[in-house]
Amino acid sequence: MRLKPTRQDGSRWVIIVGGGFAGMKAAQELANQPKIQVLLLDRNNHHLFQPLLYQVATAGLNPSDIAVPIRAQFSDASNIEVHLGKVKSVHLDEKYVVTENHEIEFDDLIIATGTQHNYFGHPEWETYAPGLKTLEQATEIRRRVLSAFELAENVFDPVQQRELLTFVVVGGGPTGVEMAGAIADIARTVLVKDFKHINPAHAHVILLEAAPRIMNSFDEKLANRAKHDLEALGVEVRTGAMVKDINAEGVLVGDQFLRARTVIWGAGVRAAPLQFIPEIPLDKAGRVKVNKDLSVPNYPNVYVVGDMASLELAPGQFLPGLAPAAMQAGRHAAQNILRTQAGKPRKDFVYKDKGQMATIGKHRAIAQAGRLRLTGFIAWLAWLFVHVFYLVTFRNRLSVMAQWSWSYTFSKRGARLITQREWKLST
Amino acid sequence: MRLKPTRQDGSRWVIIVGGGFAGMKAAQELANQPKIQVLLLDRNNHHLFQPLLYQVATAGLNPSDIAVPIRAQFSDASNIEVHLGKVKSVHLDEKYVVTENHEIEFDDLIIATGTQHNYFGHPEWETYAPGLKTLEQATEIRRRVLSAFELAENVFDPVQQRELLTFVVVGGGPTGVEMAGAIADIARTVLVKDFKHINPAHAHVILLEAAPRIMNSFDEKLANRAKHDLEALGVEVRTGAMVKDINAEGVLVGDQFLRARTVIWGAGVRAAPLQFIPEIPLDKAGRVKVNKDLSVPNYPNVYVVGDMASLELAPGQFLPGLAPAAMQAGRHAAQNILRTQAGKPRKDFVYKDKGQMATIGKHRAIAQAGRLRLTGFIAWLAWLFVHVFYLVTFRNRLSVMAQWSWSYTFSKRGARLITQREWKLST
Repeated sequence: MRLKPTRQDGSRWVIIVGGGFAGMKAAQELANQPKIQVLLLDRNNHHLFQPLLYQVATAGLNPSDIAVPIRAQFSDASNIEVHLGKVKSVHLDEKYVVTENHEIEFDDLIIATGTQHNYFGHPEWETYAPGLKTLEQATEIRRRVLSAFELAENVFDPVQQRELLTFVVVGGGPTGVEMAGAIADIARTVLVKDFKHINPAHAHVILLEAAPRIMNSFDEKLANRAKHDLEALGVEVRTGAMVKDINAEGVLVGDQFLRARTVIWGAGVRAAPLQFIPEIPLDKAGRVKVNKDLSVPNYPNVYVVGDMASLELAPGQFLPGLAPAAMQAGRHAAQNILRTQAGKPRKDFVYKDKGQMATIGKHRAIAQAGRLRLTGFIAWLAWLFVHVFYLVTFRNRLSVMAQWSWSYTFSKRGARLITQREWKLST
Repeated sequence: MRLKPTRQDGSRWVIIVGGGFAGMKAAQELANQPKIQVLLLDRNNHHLFQPLLYQVATAGLNPSDIAVPIRAQFSDASNIEVHLGKVKSVHLDEKYVVTENHEIEFDDLIIATGTQHNYFGHPEWETYAPGLKTLEQATEIRRRVLSAFELAENVFDPVQQRELLTFVVVGGGPTGVEMAGAIADIARTVLVKDFKHINPAHAHVILLEAAPRIMNSFDEKLANRAKHDLEALGVEVRTGAMVKDINAEGVLVGDQFLRARTVIWGAGVRAAPLQFIPEIPLDKAGRVKVNKDLSVPNYPNVYVVGDMASLELAPGQFLPGLAPAAMQAGRHAAQNILRTQAGKPRKDFVYKDKGQMATIGKHRAIAQAGRLRLTGFIAWLAWLFVHVFYLVTFRNRLSVMAQWSWSYTFSKRGARLITQREWKLST
């Protein structure tokens, strides 16, 4: 059934697909605007603060600390509807979107469905090496990491213990570096007190990066500092290390097989697959090449923003896949819709570089913004400030601060739960 | 491989199966006692504060607010080992326990594996009507309840909307009453602001009880008050309502079929199945009939405590399945082990009735203890005090208080997350 929204006195019907940083900002910009009706679609009921997902995966934060119901953010916006559902295809010429239950028409469309992990042609690796994009993946990684220590305590064979206490993180970008640092950190500070047979501090964390250095998007000096800080935490950093296979026993790197029960994937992303009819030009990573006003070539009423968009800022320099970039682009697309509706010319998107940062373990970080370079504890404080500040609701900010203060002071982890994949446990 | 623990200078090797209230108390009593070695086995890594599980199921609390790692509770007890694993069978004559990986000998054994839901010969109902015993079940119920509102917002057929907004809770004991009250409450206070098409306050919550009245273990006067308070929240309470079938469409009660997408089971429990060789006498609910010193007939070194034990306190009056009773029995069994080791005679268990209580919605409860009877807001305050007081760690107490203060003041729910059953979501 094709839904034709009623358009009250010339109002425009805007569909936003995706409730990440880009989609949320776009919706916020359109909230309570006259003659604008918005339908925000997402397959999850929550907006996720992805930069802190590694904290859920390493038992530092609860899922609900970094996620808020999308719907609750728009209680006061009478022109915004939120629908839970998957988008299956987008029909650009006829201007409608197909979800699991409906076909819904639009006047303007903003697509912001983000990225997912890229296993470079080996989707079968995901079973053994989950990525870190969703809450479900984060709690699964938490389950695997904590279970490995528990199982190691139960076996008495030193070879098995060693396999269980070996953690391989694939990918030396921010996700991989933060995961490797956090696992090494909880092993040495949180878990170390609680086991009688094994010493969690002997956990072997290996970070694999195919490129000659980790943290490619950062200055080389900062990247070297990150490597140094990781090694100080006991993480073995291997660069130029090409992963050739991953199975239940471990990881094949070059011609060496690393026996490890827990493998985590943080090596690459590609745009979430979405069927465009007719097809529009995509880059190698599946991202949509957008115009300077963030619209899609030949479809001025269709915008693509966030990690899914490919925009060349200068020759060879592309809009980065960072939360601030996604928020800026989401807001800009919404503003162009408002300009169009007001009969004004659209503006080209101008990216304001807010810099980037990543933590290494409990109280180290690296940060760069413009000419500013920070490392160590100062960088970590900056990181803490920025992340707590951006957490979308007041409540989460307080709760996260409280949990972190607690963890930091007492080296405890509040969310050390192993929950099962399946809910049914009565047999 | 049969593990024969090394017994240093005549120390006893005690195995405790189950990290619930009874097992934890027993282990705490044995912690750091001379010449006692303890192995605590549980299939989960966490001790769960079950009386607050309904709060997780209704998005009021996070899983980690009501669960703590068992291992972390015994960091300072050098004589207690915690192992994660399922017990498959118990061999009483040869004195060993079989887990998934090991056979482990014991000198004394405390079994405290609790209960699970009883579908009265219809295990197939569990798919449609999950019970509320584990964190996984609680998050599954949370997923179903929140998803029902989301789906109702997406459909435009009033019949389907009505089915989605009908919630049937089977069983008028404390679990059923607390669940029904909490669902009615969040629909009317938390969710009511956030939807544009449906009115969550029109959610229809039906509580079914086969007996002539709800809350059978309470005074009739208090039970009537609970019924009245539930009805004031909009819950339809049906007594004498026998469930004959449950399927994906709803519940058959007598000869009426109630169409409902969400059904929750709180109707009965039976002892968790554990294979005893040789068999020892069980009652109809699968519980072990224990001696007055809490040991098993003919096996003085084997104790059964908690919800799994059947002990007749007076003719027709049995030890209730409540947390305080489990804690008292766990402590008592441990003390009898210590007495035996010290060459002293054992003591019979004397139950101190601490009373019972249950909440109805946001700020009503019923409570009875000895001759004391409380209802309404005063009872709720008493309930709040008791439950926060008993939460096992300081951290959880603070976090729970903070969350509740927040929810109570602003009618928000912090943990409104719909997470999927499967972790893999990248396709």
